[in-house]
Amino acid sequence: MNDFVIDKRLLNDCQLITELGGISYLLHKNAEVAWFIMVPHIQQTEFYQLDATLQNQLCTQINLLSEFIKSNFDSHKINVATIGNVVSQMHIHVIGRRNDDVYWPDVVWGKGFAKSYDAKQVSSISERLKNGLLHS
Amino acid sequence: MNDFVIDKRLLNDCQLITELGGISYLLHKNAEVAWFIMVPHIQQTEFYQLDATLQNQLCTQINLLSEFIKSNFDSHKINVATIGNVVSQMHIHVIGRRNDDVYWPDVVWGKGFAKSYDAKQVSSISERLKNGLLHS
Repeated sequence: MNDFVIDKRLLNDCQLITELGGISYLLHKNAEVAWFIMVPHIQQTEFYQLDATLQNQLCTQINLLSEFIKSNFDSHKINVATIGNVVSQMHIHVIGRRNDDVYWPDVVWGKGFAKSYDAKQVSSISERLKNGLLHS
Repeated sequence: MNDFVIDKRLLNDCQLITELGGISYLLHKNAEVAWFIMVPHIQQTEFYQLDATLQNQLCTQINLLSEFIKSNFDSHKINVATIGNVVSQMHIHVIGRRNDDVYWPDVVWGKGFAKSYDAKQVSSISERLKNGLLHS
């Protein structure tokens, strides 16, 4: 879908890392947790509206992203969610949580954050994620 | 898995509605939103650890449950999430949200609630859900 545009509020909260197989991968600026967002290039807003092929593809990519997070951020728990109450454009949160992160055991949504990534960190995470997604 | 036992904290927060195909369906006592929880009878705690067959089954059941919620509760948005920071036993939240519910547009986790279902409402929702899951 060539006319697909990611919602500006997602781009404002995140760094766009890469696009692969019709899905954009974003890194949330909140560096308190390992927070990634997948944005499939579609118009539907609800997971149940997607066909089985796309749901399967999203599951496969959730698996890859979860394994990447687990091995790169020493996460104790992976939170996976599609919510969309504020930004209805379909997006899936895949978040690595540690039992010593600042929000634990609460959820991350609606919270402020004091820690952001610097450019070098974003670049490093970006390279590793791209490799992780490509070489799977 | 005959020795599967649902975590007591989930049973404390919810009413068990039915078990079908190795998945328990729970209705959260919080009647401010249409909050259902699916508990697959497995020992893994992370979605990415599940094999493709089970992930596909869970997607199919998320679809059915979402459609049930949408048509029975006039929901504007469906929130789907597996978090597990407090109760690590794998469970998937499928929640019908309305833009006039008390939490909107915030997420529902970690909030108190003033409204519960009475026995008649639970029984009615239970019957409709069982029909919805069986006759799909």
